Amino acid sequence: MSEHTLYCFAQSGNAYKPALMLQLCGADWSPRFVDFFNGETRSAEYRSRINAMGEVPVLEHGALKLTQSAVILEHLASHFARFGWASEDERREVWRWILWDNHKLTGYTAAYRFFKCFAPQLAKPDVQEFLLGRAKAAYGVLDKHLSTRQWIAADCPTIADLSVCGYLFFDDEIGIDWASDYPAIAAWLRQIRALPGWKHPYDLMPGHPLPPKA
Amino acid sequence: MSEHTLYCFAQSGNAYKPALMLQLCGADWSPRFVDFFNGETRSAEYRSRINAMGEVPVLEHGALKLTQSAVILEHLASHFARFGWASEDERREVWRWILWDNHKLTGYTAAYRFFKCFAPQLAKPDVQEFLLGRAKAAYGVLDKHLSTRQWIAADCPTIADLSVCGYLFFDDEIGIDWASDYPAIAAWLRQIRALPGWKHPYDLMPGHPLPPKA
Repeated sequence: MSEHTLYCFAQSGNAYKPALMLQLCGADWSPRFVDFFNGETRSAEYRSRINAMGEVPVLEHGALKLTQSAVILEHLASHFARFGWASEDERREVWRWILWDNHKLTGYTAAYRFFKCFAPQLAKPDVQEFLLGRAKAAYGVLDKHLSTRQWIAADCPTIADLSVCGYLFFDDEIGIDWASDYPAIAAWLRQIRALPGWKHPYDLMPGHPLPPKA
Repeated sequence: MSEHTLYCFAQSGNAYKPALMLQLCGADWSPRFVDFFNGETRSAEYRSRINAMGEVPVLEHGALKLTQSAVILEHLASHFARFGWASEDERREVWRWILWDNHKLTGYTAAYRFFKCFAPQLAKPDVQEFLLGRAKAAYGVLDKHLSTRQWIAADCPTIADLSVCGYLFFDDEIGIDWASDYPAIAAWLRQIRALPGWKHPYDLMPGHPLPPKA
């Protein structure tokens, strides 16, 4: 049995955040596939046994069962002594960007891509316009921040970088061209891609391509 | 000069989170009114001098200038030794719910209420339906969680409670009846209201009623 078990599926950028961390740290980990697209996270069993919030990721590590990607990232940063902070100021800066990611970037990007790519029958033009508008406002803030620095919260990559990038390697699915519209984001994503061991979410977690409908 | 200065305005539930914390801790603090409705947070000066993310709240405390409500709450919990955690497990539980709040509750609730109450000329029915649907899904998760416990993350109130409640005292504006639809949330909000010193956001921060358009 692996040391870490991560409940995840390939299309989840939120699950990708800790999956990438485990991968970059060379952890002994196994994915536990969650069949989101056939409703597993909405099931009573999943909510009562695994995560009352009805979400991935969930990390099992020894007796610990952790949910929320940032809680997992912080735990792994402490466990592996990697991608953490060097000072109290850096710690606050890491959390500031992780919270901003949760509040302003990931949610809008994920919902927009979900409707566009995985549930076009549910997509409504006004909703898509709203979500993409909010997402692009966040990309603008991030691009400006990265235009004068190499990494988000320190002079080396931290869990803030691994959190914020969660959905951003799905650029083809989102339909965005980082290089032309957000060049500082493009350069920063190239650096993350160059980290030893980096893998795209679809190569790191199970469930791609989409499984057939149950 | 006060020990703490909080950049805020009355209608912001995100600013209310640290404002309520300061109030409940009996802090020596002053609000610095931010004229959100006349565009101050979108101005180049605000973004360059005060917060690149273009948001309230911002806390000035001595040489520190902190942004993101949860970073501020954590700092104040440490400074006042109030509303924090008693163990590492509790600390993780506090962060789990604060992150969930940022990701799943506050954003959708705040955007829905903003269009409904403050920018009806920009409100679109499909967007409002989407936002309210997401918000209600979050209320359901929270109500279920609170149906078997008194406080969110510990056996006493913590900064998780102060974060999650940020927008929920605007029930009349949101158009929701906690008592009839989410009784556990209603009971929990009554407990928060009963904390010594509690004030509604409109009684705690400047800018209510809305200032005239500039």
